[in-house]
Amino acid sequence: MSYARQMLDTYTRSGNIDGELLAAAVDALSDCAQACNADNAADLSEPNLADMVTCIRLCLDCTDICTATAAVMGRLARDDPRVTRPLLEACVAICRSCGDECERHAPHHFHCRICAEACRQCERACLALLEGLA
Amino acid sequence: MSYARQMLDTYTRSGNIDGELLAAAVDALSDCAQACNADNAADLSEPNLADMVTCIRLCLDCTDICTATAAVMGRLARDDPRVTRPLLEACVAICRSCGDECERHAPHHFHCRICAEACRQCERACLALLEGLA
Amino acid sequence: MSYARQMLDTYTRSGNIDGELLAAAVDALSDCAQACNADNAADLSEPNLADMVTCIRLCLDCTDICTATAAVMGRLARDDPRVTRPLLEACVAICRSCGDECERHAPHHFHCRICAEACRQCERACLALLEGLA
Amino acid sequence: MSYARQMLDTYTRSGNIDGELLAAAVDALSDCAQACNADNAADLSEPNLADMVTCIRLCLDCTDICTATAAVMGRLARDDPRVTRPLLEACVAICRSCGDECERHAPHHFHCRICAEACRQCERACLALLEGLA
Repeated sequence: MSYARQMLDTYTRSGNIDGELLAAAVDALSDCAQACNADNAADLSEPNLADMVTCIRLCLDCTDICTATAAVMGRLARDDPRVTRPLLEACVAICRSCGDECERHAPHHFHCRICAEACRQCERACLALLEGLA
Repeated sequence: MSYARQMLDTYTRSGNIDGELLAAAVDALSDCAQACNADNAADLSEPNLADMVTCIRLCLDCTDICTATAAVMGRLARDDPRVTRPLLEACVAICRSCGDECERHAPHHFHCRICAEACRQCERACLALLEGLA
Repeated sequence: MSYARQMLDTYTRSGNIDGELLAAAVDALSDCAQACNADNAADLSEPNLADMVTCIRLCLDCTDICTATAAVMGRLARDDPRVTRPLLEACVAICRSCGDECERHAPHHFHCRICAEACRQCERACLALLEGLA
Repeated sequence: MSYARQMLDTYTRSGNIDGELLAAAVDALSDCAQACNADNAADLSEPNLADMVTCIRLCLDCTDICTATAAVMGRLARDDPRVTRPLLEACVAICRSCGDECERHAPHHFHCRICAEACRQCERACLALLEGLA
Protein backbone atom coordinates (compact mmCIF):
# COMPACT_ATOMS: atom_id res chain seq x y z
CA MET A 1 0.00 0.00 0.00
CA SER A 2 1.46 3.36 -1.03
CA TYR A 3 2.15 6.11 1.48
CA ALA A 4 -0.43 8.34 -0.22
CA ARG A 5 -3.08 5.71 0.44
CA GLN A 6 -2.03 5.18 4.05
CA MET A 7 -1.89 8.92 4.72
CA LEU A 8 -5.26 9.78 3.26
CA ASP A 9 -6.95 7.62 5.88
CA THR A 10 -5.27 9.34 8.82
CA TYR A 11 -6.87 12.76 8.74
CA THR A 12 -10.28 14.21 8.20
CA ARG A 13 -10.92 15.70 4.81
CA SER A 14 -14.01 17.73 4.22
CA GLY A 15 -15.91 17.54 0.95
CA ASN A 16 -17.32 14.45 -0.62
CA ILE A 17 -14.36 13.33 -2.67
CA ASP A 18 -13.99 9.54 -2.79
CA GLY A 19 -10.85 8.52 -0.86
CA GLU A 20 -10.27 5.43 -2.93
CA LEU A 21 -10.39 7.31 -6.26
CA LEU A 22 -8.23 10.05 -4.81
CA ALA A 23 -5.51 7.69 -3.57
CA ALA A 24 -5.52 5.81 -6.88
CA ALA A 25 -5.09 9.09 -8.78
CA VAL A 26 -2.25 10.30 -6.54
CA ASP A 27 -0.42 6.98 -7.02
CA ALA A 28 -0.97 6.98 -10.78
CA LEU A 29 0.17 10.62 -11.08
CA SER A 30 3.28 9.93 -9.07
CA ASP A 31 4.09 6.77 -11.08
CA CYS A 32 3.49 8.59 -14.36
CA ALA A 33 5.79 11.45 -13.37
CA GLN A 34 8.47 8.90 -12.51
CA ALA A 35 8.04 7.02 -15.80
CA CYS A 36 8.01 10.16 -17.99
CA ASN A 37 11.06 11.56 -16.23
CA ALA A 38 13.01 8.36 -16.86
CA ASP A 39 11.69 7.96 -20.41
CA ASN A 40 12.87 11.42 -21.37
CA ALA A 41 16.37 10.48 -20.19
CA ALA A 42 16.20 7.17 -22.04
CA ASP A 43 15.04 8.93 -25.24
CA LEU A 44 18.16 11.13 -25.02
CA SER A 45 20.29 7.97 -25.15
CA GLU A 46 18.82 6.77 -28.45
CA PRO A 47 20.69 7.12 -31.75
CA ASN A 48 17.59 8.31 -33.66
CA LEU A 49 17.40 11.52 -31.62
CA ALA A 50 15.60 13.64 -34.20
CA ASP A 51 12.67 11.18 -34.12
CA MET A 52 12.52 11.39 -30.34
CA VAL A 53 12.24 15.18 -29.89
CA THR A 54 8.44 15.25 -29.67
CA CYS A 55 8.51 12.38 -27.20
CA ILE A 56 11.12 14.16 -25.05
CA ARG A 57 9.11 17.39 -25.03
CA LEU A 58 5.86 15.65 -24.12
CA CYS A 59 7.56 13.61 -21.39
CA LEU A 60 8.94 16.81 -19.85
CA ASP A 61 5.51 18.46 -19.81
CA CYS A 62 3.86 15.30 -18.50
CA THR A 63 6.42 15.02 -15.68
CA ASP A 64 5.88 18.61 -14.53
CA ILE A 65 2.08 18.57 -14.75
CA CYS A 66 1.71 15.17 -13.04
CA THR A 67 4.21 16.04 -10.28
CA ALA A 68 2.35 19.25 -9.40
CA THR A 69 -1.05 17.57 -9.56
CA ALA A 70 0.13 14.67 -7.37
CA ALA A 71 1.30 17.24 -4.80
CA VAL A 72 -1.95 19.24 -4.86
CA MET A 73 -4.23 16.18 -4.80
CA GLY A 74 -2.08 14.38 -2.22
CA ARG A 75 -2.55 17.25 0.24
CA LEU A 76 -6.22 17.49 -0.40
CA ALA A 77 -8.10 18.68 2.65
CA ARG A 78 -10.88 20.59 0.94
CA ASP A 79 -11.75 20.23 -2.69
CA ASP A 80 -12.17 23.34 -4.82
CA PRO A 81 -13.37 22.04 -8.19
CA ARG A 82 -12.59 25.39 -9.88
CA VAL A 83 -8.93 24.44 -9.33
CA THR A 84 -8.88 20.65 -9.32
CA ARG A 85 -11.13 20.18 -12.35
CA PRO A 86 -8.97 22.06 -14.91
CA LEU A 87 -5.81 20.69 -13.29
CA LEU A 88 -7.01 17.12 -13.76
CA GLU A 89 -8.19 17.99 -17.28
CA ALA A 90 -4.66 19.19 -18.10
CA CYS A 91 -3.32 15.87 -16.78
CA VAL A 92 -5.76 13.88 -18.89
CA ALA A 93 -4.78 15.86 -22.01
CA ILE A 94 -1.01 15.61 -21.55
CA CYS A 95 -1.19 11.92 -20.56
CA ARG A 96 -3.20 11.22 -23.71
CA SER A 97 -0.73 13.07 -25.99
CA CYS A 98 2.32 11.64 -24.29
CA GLY A 99 0.83 8.15 -24.21
CA ASP A 100 0.02 8.32 -27.95
CA GLU A 101 3.54 9.47 -28.82
CA CYS A 102 5.16 6.85 -26.58
CA GLU A 103 3.00 4.16 -28.15
CA ARG A 104 4.34 5.12 -31.60
CA HIS A 105 7.85 4.34 -30.33
CA ALA A 106 6.86 1.28 -28.29
CA PRO A 107 7.75 -1.27 -31.02
CA HIS A 108 11.33 0.09 -31.12
CA HIS A 109 12.01 1.28 -27.59
CA PHE A 110 10.95 -0.76 -24.60
CA HIS A 111 11.21 2.32 -22.32
CA CYS A 112 8.53 4.04 -24.39
CA ARG A 113 6.27 1.01 -24.06
CA ILE A 114 6.55 1.18 -20.27
CA CYS A 115 5.97 4.93 -20.31
CA ALA A 116 2.90 4.60 -22.53
CA GLU A 117 1.41 2.20 -19.96
CA ALA A 118 2.04 4.67 -17.13
CA CYS A 119 0.39 7.47 -19.14
CA ARG A 120 -2.69 5.36 -19.98
CA GLN A 121 -3.06 4.31 -16.36
CA CYS A 122 -2.76 7.92 -15.19
CA GLU A 123 -5.25 9.17 -17.78
CA ARG A 124 -7.79 6.59 -16.56
CA ALA A 125 -7.24 7.40 -12.89
CA CYS A 126 -7.63 11.16 -13.48
CA LEU A 127 -10.78 10.63 -15.57
CA ALA A 128 -12.27 8.46 -12.83
CA LEU A 129 -11.50 11.13 -10.23
CA LEU A 130 -12.92 13.89 -12.45
CA GLU A 131 -16.19 11.95 -12.77
CA GLY A 132 -16.27 11.59 -8.99
CA LEU A 133 -15.91 15.37 -8.39
CA ALA A 134 -19.07 17.21 -7.44
CA MET B 1 14.85 41.83 -18.71
CA SER B 2 14.16 38.34 -17.32
CA TYR B 3 15.92 35.27 -18.67
CA ALA B 4 12.58 33.85 -19.83
CA ARG B 5 12.08 36.90 -22.01
CA GLN B 6 15.61 36.81 -23.40
CA MET B 7 15.40 33.09 -24.11
CA LEU B 8 12.06 33.15 -25.91
CA ASP B 9 13.57 35.32 -28.63
CA THR B 10 16.46 32.98 -29.33
CA TYR B 11 14.70 30.01 -30.89
CA THR B 12 11.93 29.39 -33.32
CA ARG B 13 8.62 28.45 -31.86
CA SER B 14 5.86 27.20 -34.10
CA GLY B 15 2.25 28.16 -33.50
CA ASN B 16 0.84 31.62 -33.27
CA ILE B 17 1.29 32.29 -29.58
CA ASP B 18 2.23 35.92 -28.83
CA GLY B 19 5.81 36.01 -27.51
CA GLU B 20 5.23 39.12 -25.40
CA LEU B 21 2.18 37.68 -23.63
CA LEU B 22 3.99 34.37 -23.16
CA ALA B 23 7.09 35.95 -21.58
CA ALA B 24 4.93 38.13 -19.32
CA ALA B 25 3.01 35.06 -18.15
CA VAL B 26 6.16 33.02 -17.49
CA ASP B 27 7.61 35.87 -15.42
CA ALA B 28 4.39 36.41 -13.48
CA LEU B 29 4.03 32.66 -12.81
CA SER B 30 7.60 32.44 -11.61
CA ASP B 31 7.22 35.52 -9.37
CA CYS B 32 3.93 34.25 -7.98
CA ALA B 33 5.44 30.86 -7.12
CA GLN B 34 8.26 32.65 -5.30
CA ALA B 35 5.88 34.92 -3.38
CA CYS B 36 3.47 32.12 -2.38
CA ASN B 37 6.34 29.89 -1.27
CA ALA B 38 7.72 32.65 0.98
CA ASP B 39 4.27 33.69 2.21
CA ASN B 40 3.47 30.19 3.36
CA ALA B 41 6.67 30.21 5.44
CA ALA B 42 5.86 33.66 6.80
CA ASP B 43 2.33 32.54 7.73
CA LEU B 44 3.85 29.70 9.76
CA SER B 45 5.73 32.30 11.83
CA GLU B 46 2.56 34.15 12.88
CA PRO B 47 1.04 33.74 16.34
CA ASN B 48 -2.55 33.47 15.01
CA LEU B 49 -1.78 30.19 13.28
CA ALA B 50 -5.31 28.81 13.26
CA ASP B 51 -6.46 31.82 11.21
CA MET B 52 -3.66 31.25 8.70
CA VAL B 53 -4.31 27.59 7.82
CA THR B 54 -6.41 28.32 4.74
CA CYS B 55 -3.83 30.82 3.54
CA ILE B 56 -1.01 28.30 4.02
CA ARG B 57 -2.91 25.60 2.11
CA LEU B 58 -3.75 27.92 -0.78
CA CYS B 59 -0.18 29.22 -0.97
CA LEU B 60 1.13 25.65 -1.20
CA ASP B 61 -1.25 24.80 -4.05
CA CYS B 62 -0.52 28.09 -5.81
CA THR B 63 3.24 27.50 -5.57
CA ASP B 64 3.02 24.02 -7.07
CA ILE B 65 0.60 24.91 -9.87
CA CYS B 66 2.45 28.11 -10.88
CA THR B 67 5.88 26.42 -10.76
CA ALA B 68 4.75 23.63 -13.08
CA THR B 69 2.96 26.02 -15.44
CA ALA B 70 6.00 28.34 -15.60
CA ALA B 71 8.12 25.33 -16.58
CA VAL B 72 5.69 24.11 -19.26
CA MET B 73 5.05 27.57 -20.72
CA GLY B 74 8.73 28.57 -20.50
CA ARG B 75 9.72 25.61 -22.70
CA LEU B 76 6.96 26.25 -25.16
CA ALA B 77 7.94 25.16 -28.62
CA ARG B 78 4.53 24.13 -29.91
CA ASP B 79 1.29 25.06 -28.27
CA ASP B 80 -1.29 22.38 -27.61
CA PRO B 81 -4.32 24.25 -26.28
CA ARG B 82 -5.88 21.01 -24.99
CA VAL B 83 -3.09 21.06 -22.40
CA THR B 84 -2.21 24.73 -21.96
CA ARG B 85 -5.80 26.00 -21.75
CA PRO B 86 -6.89 23.97 -18.68
CA LEU B 87 -3.46 24.43 -17.11
CA LEU B 88 -3.75 28.22 -17.36
CA GLU B 89 -7.35 28.01 -16.15
CA ALA B 90 -6.16 26.14 -13.05
CA CYS B 91 -3.61 28.95 -12.48
CA VAL B 92 -6.26 31.64 -12.84
CA ALA B 93 -8.52 29.83 -10.34
CA ILE B 94 -5.86 29.19 -7.68
CA CYS B 95 -4.40 32.71 -8.07
CA ARG B 96 -7.88 34.16 -7.57
CA SER B 97 -8.56 32.08 -4.42
CA CYS B 98 -5.11 32.59 -3.00
CA GLY B 99 -5.17 36.32 -3.82
CA ASP B 100 -8.58 36.71 -2.11
CA GLU B 101 -7.41 34.92 1.02
CA CYS B 102 -4.13 36.86 1.16
CA GLU B 103 -6.04 40.11 0.75
CA ARG B 104 -8.12 39.24 3.85
CA HIS B 105 -4.88 39.10 5.84
CA ALA B 106 -3.22 42.07 4.13
CA PRO B 107 -4.24 44.63 6.80
CA HIS B 108 -2.47 42.55 9.48
CA HIS B 109 0.38 40.87 7.66
CA PHE B 110 2.52 42.75 5.19
CA HIS B 111 3.76 39.48 3.63
CA CYS B 112 0.18 38.62 2.69
CA ARG B 113 -0.24 42.02 1.06
CA ILE B 114 2.81 41.39 -1.13
CA CYS B 115 1.62 37.87 -1.94
CA ALA B 116 -1.85 39.13 -2.89
CA GLU B 117 -0.23 41.50 -5.39
CA ALA B 118 1.79 38.67 -6.94
CA CYS B 119 -1.36 36.52 -7.24
CA ARG B 120 -3.38 39.32 -8.89
CA GLN B 121 -0.57 40.05 -11.34
CA CYS B 122 -0.29 36.35 -12.21
CA GLU B 123 -4.05 35.97 -12.64
CA ARG B 124 -4.07 38.90 -15.09
CA ALA B 125 -1.08 37.60 -17.06
CA CYS B 126 -2.58 34.10 -17.38
CA LEU B 127 -5.96 35.52 -18.45
CA ALA B 128 -4.26 37.67 -21.09
CA LEU B 129 -2.38 34.64 -22.41
CA LEU B 130 -5.54 32.52 -22.39
CA GLU B 131 -7.31 35.14 -24.51
CA GLY B 132 -4.36 35.08 -26.91
CA LEU B 133 -4.53 31.29 -27.41
CA ALA B 134 -6.12 30.08 -30.62
CA MET C 1 7.91 -3.38 -9.66
CA SER C 2 8.02 0.41 -9.84
CA TYR C 3 8.34 2.24 -13.15
CA ALA C 4 11.72 3.64 -12.06
CA ARG C 5 13.01 0.10 -11.67
CA GLN C 6 11.58 -1.08 -14.98
CA MET C 7 12.93 1.97 -16.82
CA LEU C 8 16.46 1.79 -15.48
CA ASP C 9 16.94 -1.58 -17.16
CA THR C 10 15.90 -0.35 -20.60
CA TYR C 11 18.74 1.94 -21.52
CA THR C 12 22.47 1.99 -21.21
CA ARG C 13 23.91 4.07 -18.43
CA SER C 14 27.60 4.74 -18.29
CA GLY C 15 29.47 4.84 -15.02
CA ASN C 16 29.62 2.12 -12.43
CA ILE C 17 26.59 3.02 -10.35
CA ASP C 18 24.74 -0.03 -9.05
CA GLY C 19 21.33 -0.24 -10.78
CA GLU C 20 19.67 -1.99 -7.87
CA LEU C 21 20.79 0.61 -5.31
CA LEU C 22 19.83 3.39 -7.71
CA ALA C 23 16.31 2.08 -8.32
CA ALA C 24 15.79 1.51 -4.59
CA ALA C 25 16.86 5.10 -3.87
CA VAL C 26 14.62 6.57 -6.57
CA ASP C 27 11.64 4.65 -5.20
CA ALA C 28 12.38 5.61 -1.60
CA LEU C 29 12.86 9.29 -2.55
CA SER C 30 9.62 9.32 -4.46
CA ASP C 31 7.72 7.60 -1.61
CA CYS C 32 9.25 9.94 0.97
CA ALA C 33 8.25 13.02 -1.03
CA GLN C 34 4.70 11.67 -1.23
CA ALA C 35 4.55 10.92 2.49
CA CYS C 36 6.02 14.29 3.58
CA ASN C 37 3.69 16.18 1.26
CA ALA C 38 0.65 14.43 2.73
CA ASP C 39 1.95 14.68 6.31
CA ASN C 40 2.35 18.43 6.03
CA ALA C 41 -1.30 18.68 4.98
CA ALA C 42 -2.37 16.36 7.78
CA ASP C 43 -0.39 18.41 10.33
CA LEU C 44 -2.31 21.49 9.21
CA SER C 45 -5.56 19.72 10.17
CA GLU C 46 -4.49 19.12 13.78
CA PRO C 47 -5.81 21.23 16.67
CA ASN C 48 -2.36 21.58 18.32
CA LEU C 49 -1.04 23.61 15.38
CA ALA C 50 1.65 25.51 17.27
CA ASP C 51 3.31 22.18 18.18
CA MET C 52 3.28 21.10 14.56
CA VAL C 53 5.04 24.08 12.93
CA THR C 54 8.51 22.52 12.96
CA CYS C 55 7.11 19.31 11.53
CA ILE C 56 5.31 21.22 8.76
CA ARG C 57 8.46 23.16 7.86
CA LEU C 58 10.65 20.05 7.77
CA CYS C 59 8.09 18.14 5.72
CA LEU C 60 8.03 20.95 3.14
CA ASP C 61 11.81 20.95 2.82
CA CYS C 62 11.95 17.16 2.71
CA THR C 63 9.30 17.06 -0.04
CA ASP C 64 11.17 19.56 -2.23
CA ILE C 65 14.63 18.04 -1.74
CA CYS C 66 13.47 14.44 -2.25
CA THR C 67 11.34 15.33 -5.31
CA ALA C 68 14.29 17.03 -7.03
CA THR C 69 16.70 14.25 -6.11
CA ALA C 70 14.29 11.56 -7.35
CA ALA C 71 14.10 13.42 -10.68
CA VAL C 72 17.88 13.82 -11.03
CA MET C 73 18.70 10.25 -9.95
CA GLY C 74 15.83 8.78 -11.97
CA ARG C 75 17.25 10.26 -15.18
CA LEU C 76 20.74 9.17 -14.40
CA ALA C 77 22.73 8.46 -17.52
CA ARG C 78 26.16 9.51 -16.30
CA ASP C 79 27.06 9.97 -12.69
CA ASP C 80 28.86 13.13 -11.63
CA PRO C 81 29.66 12.61 -7.94
CA ARG C 82 30.42 16.32 -7.49
CA VAL C 83 26.67 16.84 -7.95
CA THR C 84 25.07 13.61 -6.76
CA ARG C 85 27.14 13.24 -3.59
CA PRO C 86 26.12 16.55 -1.92
CA LEU C 87 22.58 16.17 -3.24
CA LEU C 88 22.24 12.75 -1.58
CA GLU C 89 23.90 14.13 1.56
CA ALA C 90 21.26 16.89 1.70
CA CYS C 91 18.59 14.16 1.42
CA VAL C 92 20.13 12.13 4.22
CA ALA C 93 20.27 15.22 6.47
CA ILE C 94 16.71 16.40 5.85
CA CYS C 95 15.29 12.84 6.09
CA ARG C 96 17.05 12.43 9.45
CA SER C 97 15.71 15.74 10.83
CA CYS C 98 12.25 15.23 9.46
CA GLY C 99 12.17 11.59 10.60
CA ASP C 100 13.23 12.60 14.14
CA GLU C 101 10.56 15.30 14.34
CA CYS C 102 7.85 13.02 12.94
CA GLU C 103 8.82 10.32 15.43
CA ARG C 104 8.23 12.78 18.29
CA HIS C 105 4.65 13.16 17.10
CA ALA C 106 4.15 9.49 16.21
CA PRO C 107 2.48 8.55 19.52
CA HIS C 108 -0.21 11.19 18.95
CA HIS C 109 -0.58 11.36 15.19
CA PHE C 110 -0.65 8.25 13.08
CA HIS C 111 0.20 10.25 9.94
CA CYS C 112 3.48 11.29 11.53
CA ARG C 113 4.28 7.67 12.33
CA ILE C 114 3.85 6.73 8.68
CA CYS C 115 5.90 9.71 7.56
CA ALA C 116 8.72 8.87 10.00
CA GLU C 117 8.91 5.41 8.43
CA ALA C 118 9.15 6.86 4.93
CA CYS C 119 11.93 9.24 6.06
CA ARG C 120 13.93 6.44 7.72
CA GLN C 121 13.59 4.23 4.68
CA CYS C 122 14.71 7.08 2.39
CA GLU C 123 17.67 7.95 4.62
CA ARG C 124 18.84 4.32 4.48
CA ALA C 125 18.41 4.07 0.70
CA CYS C 126 20.35 7.32 0.10
CA LEU C 127 23.14 6.26 2.45
CA ALA C 128 23.42 2.91 0.66
CA LEU C 129 23.63 4.66 -2.68
CA LEU C 130 26.20 7.15 -1.36
CA GLU C 131 28.40 4.27 -0.22
CA GLY C 132 28.08 2.75 -3.67
CA LEU C 133 29.26 5.92 -5.46
CA ALA C 134 32.83 5.91 -6.70
CA MET D 1 12.81 44.40 -6.25
CA SER D 2 11.91 40.71 -6.43
CA TYR D 3 9.14 39.21 -4.30
CA ALA D 4 11.69 37.00 -2.52
CA ARG D 5 13.55 40.09 -1.40
CA GLN D 6 10.39 41.90 -0.30
CA MET D 7 9.11 38.86 1.58
CA LEU D 8 12.29 38.11 3.49
CA ASP D 9 12.01 41.45 5.27
CA THR D 10 8.46 40.85 6.47
CA TYR D 11 8.93 38.10 9.00
CA THR D 12 11.39 37.19 11.70
CA ARG D 13 13.93 34.57 10.84
CA SER D 14 16.07 33.08 13.55
CA GLY D 15 19.69 32.22 12.92
CA ASN D 16 22.39 34.53 11.71
CA ILE D 17 21.99 34.14 7.98
CA ASP D 18 22.56 37.39 6.06
CA GLY D 19 19.25 38.54 4.53
CA GLU D 20 20.90 40.27 1.59
CA LEU D 21 22.96 37.22 0.58
CA LEU D 22 19.93 35.00 1.06
CA ALA D 23 17.65 37.12 -1.15
CA ALA D 24 20.35 37.38 -3.83
CA ALA D 25 20.76 33.59 -3.82
CA VAL D 26 17.01 32.93 -4.02
CA ASP D 27 16.72 35.31 -6.98
CA ALA D 28 19.74 33.82 -8.77
CA LEU D 29 18.48 30.26 -8.19
CA SER D 30 15.07 31.14 -9.50
CA ASP D 31 16.52 32.92 -12.57
CA CYS D 32 18.90 30.04 -13.25
CA ALA D 33 16.08 27.49 -13.10
CA GLN D 34 14.11 29.61 -15.58
CA ALA D 35 17.08 29.96 -17.95
CA CYS D 36 18.04 26.26 -17.85
CA ASN D 37 14.45 25.18 -18.39
CA ALA D 38 14.16 27.39 -21.48
CA ASP D 39 17.64 26.48 -22.73
CA ASN D 40 16.85 22.78 -22.66
CA ALA D 41 13.80 23.47 -24.85
CA ALA D 42 15.86 25.66 -27.18
CA ASP D 43 18.54 22.95 -27.45
CA LEU D 44 15.85 20.50 -28.57
CA SER D 45 15.06 22.84 -31.49
CA GLU D 46 18.63 22.79 -32.85
CA PRO D 47 19.60 20.73 -35.91
CA ASN D 48 22.84 19.44 -34.32
CA LEU D 49 20.92 17.50 -31.70
CA ALA D 50 23.57 14.87 -30.98
CA ASP D 51 25.99 17.64 -29.92
CA MET D 52 23.40 19.09 -27.56
CA VAL D 53 22.55 15.98 -25.50
CA THR D 54 24.98 16.72 -22.67
CA CYS D 55 23.74 20.30 -22.52
CA ILE D 56 20.11 19.13 -22.37
CA ARG D 57 20.86 16.65 -19.57
CA LEU D 58 22.79 19.21 -17.51
CA CYS D 59 20.08 21.84 -18.00
CA LEU D 60 17.45 19.40 -16.74
CA ASP D 61 19.46 18.61 -13.61
CA CYS D 62 20.27 22.28 -13.04
CA THR D 63 16.58 23.23 -13.34
CA ASP D 64 15.46 20.64 -10.79
CA ILE D 65 18.23 21.29 -8.27
CA CYS D 66 17.92 25.11 -8.46
CA THR D 67 14.11 25.03 -8.27
CA ALA D 68 14.16 22.92 -5.11
CA THR D 69 16.93 24.99 -3.52
CA ALA D 70 15.13 28.26 -4.32
CA ALA D 71 12.04 26.85 -2.58
CA VAL D 72 13.92 25.67 0.51
CA MET D 73 16.03 28.83 0.84
CA GLY D 74 13.07 31.12 0.05
CA ARG D 75 11.11 29.69 2.99
CA LEU D 76 14.05 29.89 5.31
CA ALA D 77 12.96 30.46 8.89
CA ARG D 78 15.73 28.58 10.68
CA ASP D 79 18.94 27.55 9.04
CA ASP D 80 20.14 23.99 9.45
CA PRO D 81 23.60 23.93 7.80
CA ARG D 82 23.58 20.10 7.71
CA VAL D 83 20.88 20.48 5.07
CA THR D 84 21.55 23.84 3.42
CA ARG D 85 25.32 23.39 3.07
CA PRO D 86 25.27 20.24 0.90
CA LEU D 87 22.23 21.53 -0.98
CA LEU D 88 24.06 24.73 -1.93
CA GLU D 89 27.18 22.69 -2.75
CA ALA D 90 25.11 20.61 -5.17
CA CYS D 91 23.89 23.86 -6.78
CA VAL D 92 27.43 25.19 -7.12
CA ALA D 93 28.57 21.94 -8.75
CA ILE D 94 25.71 21.63 -11.23
CA CYS D 95 25.84 25.36 -12.11
CA ARG D 96 29.56 25.01 -12.80
CA SER D 97 29.11 21.95 -15.05
CA CYS D 98 26.09 23.35 -16.81
CA GLY D 99 27.73 26.77 -17.22
CA ASP D 100 30.87 25.17 -18.71
CA GLU D 101 28.84 23.12 -21.18
CA CYS D 102 26.65 26.08 -22.16
CA GLU D 103 29.76 28.22 -22.68
CA ARG D 104 31.07 25.63 -25.18
CA HIS D 105 27.92 26.20 -27.25
CA ALA D 106 27.74 29.98 -26.70
CA PRO D 107 29.52 30.90 -29.96
CA HIS D 108 26.91 28.98 -31.97
CA HIS D 109 23.73 29.29 -29.92
CA PHE D 110 22.73 32.57 -28.33
CA HIS D 111 20.37 30.78 -25.90
CA CYS D 112 23.35 28.87 -24.48
CA ARG D 113 25.23 32.13 -23.98
CA ILE D 114 22.35 33.52 -21.93
CA CYS D 115 22.05 30.29 -19.95
CA ALA D 116 25.79 30.24 -19.21
CA GLU D 117 25.46 33.73 -17.71
CA ALA D 118 22.58 32.63 -15.49
CA CYS D 119 24.58 29.59 -14.31
CA ARG D 120 27.68 31.69 -13.50
CA GLN D 121 25.59 34.24 -11.63
CA CYS D 122 23.89 31.47 -9.63
CA GLU D 123 27.17 29.74 -8.83
CA ARG D 124 28.55 33.01 -7.44
CA ALA D 125 25.45 33.75 -5.38
CA CYS D 126 25.42 30.25 -3.87
CA LEU D 127 29.14 30.41 -3.07
CA ALA D 128 28.66 33.79 -1.38
CA LEU D 129 25.80 32.39 0.71
CA LEU D 130 27.82 29.27 1.60
CA GLU D 131 30.64 31.46 2.90
CA GLY D 132 28.11 33.39 4.96
CA LEU D 133 26.73 30.24 6.65
CA ALA D 134 27.91 29.57 10.18
